[in-house]
Amino acid sequence: MKIITISREFGSGGREIGKRLADALGIAYLDREIVTAIAEKSSLDEDYVERNIERGFLKMYPVTFSNTLTHMPLILNGTPNLLAEQHKVIREMAGRGDCVIVGRGADNILRDYTPFKIFVYADMAAKIDRCRKRAPEAETLSDREYEKYIKQIDKARAENHNIFSSNKWGDRIGYNLCVNTTDIEIKSFIPHLAAYTEEWFKRRRK
Amino acid sequence: MKIITISREFGSGGREIGKRLADALGIAYLDREIVTAIAEKSSLDEDYVERNIERGFLKMYPVTFSNTLTHMPLILNGTPNLLAEQHKVIREMAGRGDCVIVGRGADNILRDYTPFKIFVYADMAAKIDRCRKRAPEAETLSDREYEKYIKQIDKARAENHNIFSSNKWGDRIGYNLCVNTTDIEIKSFIPHLAAYTEEWFKRRRK
Repeated sequence: MKIITISREFGSGGREIGKRLADALGIAYLDREIVTAIAEKSSLDEDYVERNIERGFLKMYPVTFSNTLTHMPLILNGTPNLLAEQHKVIREMAGRGDCVIVGRGADNILRDYTPFKIFVYADMAAKIDRCRKRAPEAETLSDREYEKYIKQIDKARAENHNIFSSNKWGDRIGYNLCVNTTDIEIKSFIPHLAAYTEEWFKRRRK
Repeated sequence: MKIITISREFGSGGREIGKRLADALGIAYLDREIVTAIAEKSSLDEDYVERNIERGFLKMYPVTFSNTLTHMPLILNGTPNLLAEQHKVIREMAGRGDCVIVGRGADNILRDYTPFKIFVYADMAAKIDRCRKRAPEAETLSDREYEKYIKQIDKARAENHNIFSSNKWGDRIGYNLCVNTTDIEIKSFIPHLAAYTEEWFKRRRK
């Protein structure tokens, strides 16, 4: 089974790499369908689920979790436990076959599958530039505001990740390959990343 | 001009990647010739030069250097300033054409060339395994001894690097690609790394 997980700094193009890599490898790309499945199971609004999962888990559930969520209750303090739901959904979906998953702690949730783990990052200036290009026209944040926002999101990602993993979010040792997108056009590099990934599944020693 | 610099944790196979990548790209691999040139210029023994450059700069010259060594005296406290010599030699050699340089702070020394910067790393167990396989038969270190040795070397590398660079040694943002060699056979991945590197020189935005 080929599972590829992509962790990324906000604004570095991790999602673009994920989508394009899944296309290049001809395997599933799991993203919005995870949120949809959680929303359905917990009878919550998709946007609510997405917002709470991405940005505020630590605030929602300020308790110390054990390293696995398998046996966690699906209702916690009267609120559906979205984290446990996400864990279940990701395992179910990954169990169906080869796939690329961006974020969501999948590198840790799916560690039994020995996924190929990529971390995507970039200079702050490049991330701000990318955010601005993709923003709705009405959004007019300054560089400083973008920087603050990017750092906030990444802080939440790191916190969410670090609860469950013995490796710190972004620490190279937790990944097979760390890709700096600062001065590259992602599209052109996909064939090489895909070839590297294929080689890894073919040749890895364990 | 294509300059590729490789920084690496001790025992992670950075030198093997450097050599093989230079071969694959058909460009020069600079390593021992740098030491030879420094030894000749300073009339010192090659081994002495190598040992002092790799392991003990901070101890040899416990002063705060400015960010550039170009104007540093070649004699410091009566001792030939090997660091300044190395700086000069690396700039001279890199100026001759495309090359791969492993270690030696080349990523910082040659930053005006905008090199493609790779960082190579691996799990401690993999590094110990690699060291043991390459050790002379008489060398019988325990895992713990190897680990201590590896950490010492990397600490010196980090210290030497951090004097001159605004990015910390091993911090992903200072590199274009970080490669985990833990469970791979390096040889098989060289064509993909070479293709990625070529693409970067062709496509990079700056």
